[in-house]
Amino acid sequence: MKKFINKIDDVLTESLSGFALAHGDLVTLNLEPNFLTRKQKSSNKVAIISGGGSGHEPLHAGYIGYGMLDAACPGYVFTSPTPDQMLAAATAVHADRGVLFIVKNYAGDVMNFEMAAEMLSFESATVLTSDDCAVINSTYTTGRRGVAGTVIVEKCVGSLAETGADLQACKALGDKVNSRTASMGVALTSCTVPAAGRPTFDISDTELEMGVGIHGEPGRRREAMREADAIVSDCVEAIITDLKTRAIFTTSTHEALLLINGFGATPLMELYLIYNTALKLFNQHGIQISRSLVGNYTTALDMAGASITLCLLDDEIKQHWDSPVHTAALRWNK
Amino acid sequence: MKKFINKIDDVLTESLSGFALAHGDLVTLNLEPNFLTRKQKSSNKVAIISGGGSGHEPLHAGYIGYGMLDAACPGYVFTSPTPDQMLAAATAVHADRGVLFIVKNYAGDVMNFEMAAEMLSFESATVLTSDDCAVINSTYTTGRRGVAGTVIVEKCVGSLAETGADLQACKALGDKVNSRTASMGVALTSCTVPAAGRPTFDISDTELEMGVGIHGEPGRRREAMREADAIVSDCVEAIITDLKTRAIFTTSTHEALLLINGFGATPLMELYLIYNTALKLFNQHGIQISRSLVGNYTTALDMAGASITLCLLDDEIKQHWDSPVHTAALRWNK
Repeated sequence: MKKFINKIDDVLTESLSGFALAHGDLVTLNLEPNFLTRKQKSSNKVAIISGGGSGHEPLHAGYIGYGMLDAACPGYVFTSPTPDQMLAAATAVHADRGVLFIVKNYAGDVMNFEMAAEMLSFESATVLTSDDCAVINSTYTTGRRGVAGTVIVEKCVGSLAETGADLQACKALGDKVNSRTASMGVALTSCTVPAAGRPTFDISDTELEMGVGIHGEPGRRREAMREADAIVSDCVEAIITDLKTRAIFTTSTHEALLLINGFGATPLMELYLIYNTALKLFNQHGIQISRSLVGNYTTALDMAGASITLCLLDDEIKQHWDSPVHTAALRWNK
Repeated sequence: MKKFINKIDDVLTESLSGFALAHGDLVTLNLEPNFLTRKQKSSNKVAIISGGGSGHEPLHAGYIGYGMLDAACPGYVFTSPTPDQMLAAATAVHADRGVLFIVKNYAGDVMNFEMAAEMLSFESATVLTSDDCAVINSTYTTGRRGVAGTVIVEKCVGSLAETGADLQACKALGDKVNSRTASMGVALTSCTVPAAGRPTFDISDTELEMGVGIHGEPGRRREAMREADAIVSDCVEAIITDLKTRAIFTTSTHEALLLINGFGATPLMELYLIYNTALKLFNQHGIQISRSLVGNYTTALDMAGASITLCLLDDEIKQHWDSPVHTAALRWNK
């Protein structure tokens, strides 16, 4: 294992400290318990909080700021944060309008966020993200995994919260965005968790893992490596089938957001090549791509691989996707 | 070699097409010859054009847009663009105020941009970037290599050009930023050029390459892998020594921009850890870091590694770094 790290036990603290120093205009870092909040506390809005194991950067701390999250609770690498972190973060940022937790559907995260919610002395609700259509149940989940679509949920819900919408409206939008979103990932290599010191799984130079999770969990099948067009086609078909099966994809044409997400070690050059193919294939299904995001937005440490996420848009989702956002990892004003 | 590609000969076209589709609001792609321009042609300003071999994305096409480049000319992977590309791009974007080429100092790029400049029927000038302090001459260069500091040059010169400044003023600022900037890179793995199909160089699981170039060129020395703090310390010392040797670093305290650049396969978590250490070490040299950039900004395909770039600021450079920019890879309004 070659990584830019010092002592294994210090990786998270040192990385969070660097993040907070680099983005001191946006965030404040609290250590023990670990959580990050916006530099300027918001008032008169629902507080939006996310969190989960580290190793998926810029998720979630990179999405703290105007128009997105109020706080994020990072666990150790691929390990759920503990309830004291969410409790402290919620206490720090809530503004008497309630707290909405956005939680990727993994058993540990779900349990710990639930425990935190029970300990709160103010109102809360939770949006569980579950956009990964690769598998129904998996190593760490009962039900579908939450993956890169989480970014779209956080962006839209964060935007709505800025308008002063109430807790139930924020939860409803988050649930809607999640239900209209499907993702499929492919790994070309494993990732290596620092504390483990060796790759999470073995994969040969001629294989890929179709449907991999963002912790290197198994997907649908191990396959022979192929050309990008063939790989992307299988992902697109999986996404279309999922949306049709769930009766989300009902009309003959649809407008959508296409997110091509790198897992950490895949060059941007390849991500744009994937985008080029995916866009054409979705077009053939009557889907017009009117919003795009290409880059490393929900990573799996140093895994080479990528995921494709499609979110079917409506006017409300478009409005909240397009609205201004000012975070370390997403920033625009239109 | 496992990459998300189809036919080797189509990699560049397919990736550029994906980029242009994903950022259709910002750029227009021309094929044969290959160049990209801003969607909206500017008037009454110096046209800023860069280019170079592909494989360093988002450099350069990711920096096309308001406040930065007017056009970019991508060559094949790690191969200089040809003069017809620069000639066509310059003809497309020039607005009777002249053209400034920003060229990383590699023999092929320098020669081809010079040939293009000689063919132009309007005024041009060139800023050569040479921020890499690792080696004096290298595989592809006479003199220092241009690496991630090029992004800072392109940002500042692009900003000045928007004010209506003339060609010589834009060149002067570019030369100044370059002279006040120093970079040092480290590779943990090689990169793999698609057409080669195998790693550019061999490196064991216990070694690093100190001072590596962005094409995998040799640096200063092959070393045993160490903790991040020790690696970063050597990079910081190399940068400080370089700035002192060139008499750029003259006062006892200085304000600077710190760029931690990933080479393509290094997780953001590690880049922020590097930032944390580098900031403290520069502080010990009396350097206050007031501007930061952390991420993949000048990559080397799928190389695991990172570079540290320090740019000593003055009021003019700060003004042009802070000014609004709207490109695919850099975007802000403050």
